[in-house]
Amino acid sequence: MKNLFADTIVAPATTPGTGAISIVRISGPEAFCIVDAVVELKSGTVSGADAYTIHYGSVYSNSALLDDVLVSVFRAPHSYTGEDSVEISTHASAYIVEELIRLLLATGARYAEPGEFTKRAFLNGKMDLTQAEAVADVISSRSSAAHRVAINQLKGNFSNELARLRSSLLEMASLLELELDFSEEDVEFANREQLQALVSETLAQVQRLASTFRQGNMIKNGVPVAIVGPANAGKSTLLNVLIGEDRAIVTEIPGTTRDTIEETIQLGGILFRFIDTAGLRDTSDTVEKIGVERSYRKLSEAEIVLALLDVTADGKELLNNIKLLVPHVDFAHQKLFILLNKCDKIGQIEVNKKVTALNNFVSQFGYQCFITSISAMEQTGLEELKQRLIDAEKGLIPNADSTFVTNIRHYEALCQAASALQDVRTSLSDNTPTDLVAEDLRRALAAINTLLGTDLLDPETILHQIFRNHCIGK
Amino acid sequence: MKNLFADTIVAPATTPGTGAISIVRISGPEAFCIVDAVVELKSGTVSGADAYTIHYGSVYSNSALLDDVLVSVFRAPHSYTGEDSVEISTHASAYIVEELIRLLLATGARYAEPGEFTKRAFLNGKMDLTQAEAVADVISSRSSAAHRVAINQLKGNFSNELARLRSSLLEMASLLELELDFSEEDVEFANREQLQALVSETLAQVQRLASTFRQGNMIKNGVPVAIVGPANAGKSTLLNVLIGEDRAIVTEIPGTTRDTIEETIQLGGILFRFIDTAGLRDTSDTVEKIGVERSYRKLSEAEIVLALLDVTADGKELLNNIKLLVPHVDFAHQKLFILLNKCDKIGQIEVNKKVTALNNFVSQFGYQCFITSISAMEQTGLEELKQRLIDAEKGLIPNADSTFVTNIRHYEALCQAASALQDVRTSLSDNTPTDLVAEDLRRALAAINTLLGTDLLDPETILHQIFRNHCIGK
Repeated sequence: MKNLFADTIVAPATTPGTGAISIVRISGPEAFCIVDAVVELKSGTVSGADAYTIHYGSVYSNSALLDDVLVSVFRAPHSYTGEDSVEISTHASAYIVEELIRLLLATGARYAEPGEFTKRAFLNGKMDLTQAEAVADVISSRSSAAHRVAINQLKGNFSNELARLRSSLLEMASLLELELDFSEEDVEFANREQLQALVSETLAQVQRLASTFRQGNMIKNGVPVAIVGPANAGKSTLLNVLIGEDRAIVTEIPGTTRDTIEETIQLGGILFRFIDTAGLRDTSDTVEKIGVERSYRKLSEAEIVLALLDVTADGKELLNNIKLLVPHVDFAHQKLFILLNKCDKIGQIEVNKKVTALNNFVSQFGYQCFITSISAMEQTGLEELKQRLIDAEKGLIPNADSTFVTNIRHYEALCQAASALQDVRTSLSDNTPTDLVAEDLRRALAAINTLLGTDLLDPETILHQIFRNHCIGK
Repeated sequence: MKNLFADTIVAPATTPGTGAISIVRISGPEAFCIVDAVVELKSGTVSGADAYTIHYGSVYSNSALLDDVLVSVFRAPHSYTGEDSVEISTHASAYIVEELIRLLLATGARYAEPGEFTKRAFLNGKMDLTQAEAVADVISSRSSAAHRVAINQLKGNFSNELARLRSSLLEMASLLELELDFSEEDVEFANREQLQALVSETLAQVQRLASTFRQGNMIKNGVPVAIVGPANAGKSTLLNVLIGEDRAIVTEIPGTTRDTIEETIQLGGILFRFIDTAGLRDTSDTVEKIGVERSYRKLSEAEIVLALLDVTADGKELLNNIKLLVPHVDFAHQKLFILLNKCDKIGQIEVNKKVTALNNFVSQFGYQCFITSISAMEQTGLEELKQRLIDAEKGLIPNADSTFVTNIRHYEALCQAASALQDVRTSLSDNTPTDLVAEDLRRALAAINTLLGTDLLDPETILHQIFRNHCIGK
């Protein structure tokens, strides 16, 4: 295989200082020579070693032992990057890793940019661009649904759909070509009909893919659930109880640090992002008003609104709470759960009466909502609540084949393709000259190519944008 | 090789969620079967694979792809633990690692205890106990000196010294044995002389080793440098300027979080631990007195005292500052540096005059100390200061062969051995009956055995104590 890159890159592939093992990764045409200069194998050399073998060796710095290491050898093109690559496994010490990398840099390697190993894998044809992007998503997945979607994308499900779209677009292009070739004859009409059908079908597919972005985004970043309600209804207690049992996978990725009032919880494989809000009430106090307005904004951004009320409050107050809330809920797009908390504090009969009263009140307006009583303190009713949350979002559980768009870049490119295809459709109906139709079609094709990373118009800028968000060493 | 352990252990060897690669480690008699049940290799099986080879495979969970992985195969006894072992390399995702470990546990592996891989390496004879302990020290080293000492210990330098001590003790035991055998005859006197010489020599060696602990502790945890002086002398500025350039290797090991007023800095390969203190002055205010007393306590625990004064203060005030400080410095064991800060604020001649005056004052009492002027703000005089600090502690820079005791367990065992040998020496002079001398000798031998981990009297307790401080996966 021809080396696309003249330089050899190095970076840590693990975070040193925690755990038992650290790995330093090297890739490029000089990888073997550089490692041979720095690591003294017990026998033989890396350059002479078979692919997929592991070797024991020692690294010396200023003629003193730095560490005993294991060296794993990967030969081009059968490596992650497609280049000759080596993974050096050391004790998980920040000092050893820093010093080892210093030695490798001094011997001719260059420190890798963020995501550069994956960028090379893409440029060496080991994966397409959406697959390369999926690598970062696989690493940062915080729920099984998010992981499934990212793995499907890494496996190439999304790429396959895009490849199908691309071949439809190329078919259209060839039909248009035919029309241009035979423009003197009478083939136009037949072709145009066939073309229209193909455009409509492809447009529908593009639109369907683009429409998965709303869900895909929720899978990746969590379903936003706003917890609203008056002060002292028990919002914090509820959140703590839910977190205590079902906290999402804890990551230490820089940048995932949450806002203090947001907590993500994995329920039934789906990530939920609970957003605590300031107590809602009518107020004339300026400062408090700002807090309440912010609560309403969070509410409007939520997928599910959990209205938490204190069941020990009198019936009139509960109705007032709901009256205050309901105008802010968009029942066409949002789900409202009304939870009457502290049900352990009063008798079951009284609780049931209040649930029924609220149900009657809400249903007279034709609103769909789920009303139940819970006790956050006593942890009663929580299992049903969790199940209701999961049921409400079970459309987000992907199967082995499903594709969700989770990346804003992908969503925007699909929207561009859809818009170009709509123009193609209009032009075809308007009997616009073929070369102008072809222009619109090319725009659609360019958008799909941008996703796959083929025939990039401005590769440098696009690749820089994509890989700078990867971590070093990937 | 016979399997000492019936169960197979598993743990993550890296911290998932950061970096590019995560590693899950498995060791024990069933390691290969368990991995074969969980990972589908592209071709062949782990059980049938050669040692030191790498294999591509896929892991499925609920019949969906969890991840594509690389599997590294290590066969007993040529592995870290001495057992059949496998390292599975995945994308660095917390979700993947959790799920993979869940699958391995479901197939018969057990979650490893902290340090259990290293404990098995010790129990399988791959390393002795001081070497096993060095593994944790290698990982947590925060300076090149600390790393060198830990690596030397891991290589077996300390073990070799202990082995020499052990053979001297065994030689003494055989001389005593001879005496018991021939007690009717006249061999006693000759043997006792030879024995006395050997005891003294060995005792001296034990004491020399034990005496390295003070330095070893400083190498590992940093040389304590107390920054003292009146308020507004510029202590925080000095600390910030030093930290900005020379912060010690940043680790994320839980438990290394520093006290807010302590910062470690690596200078010339040595770790220095700077301790900021409250301003020193005579006061009758009760609360302030507590602060000042705490400062004096920090001062008394320091190896080096940096007295930071404001050179723009008048000469009398500077002398008063020093008079207040000097009685608290133990010149036999501590080094005093007097730094006249803010030297950019007044003329050089005046600065020199004040340095000379302080020098005269201090030397009239016969104290050894280093006095200079600096400007923390303008960063002048700092290079000389750093060099002076390095020079003052250059005894802490280990060479490839030097042994420092850095572990309190080792220090205590050496002290026990020394005390037992002193008893042997006294008993020999007093012509105590041979069997009582032999008793003391056995105590010395038991102490050395505890260090090496041979013939442990209470192995369970000792090993638990040692390995519980290791991290999971090591």
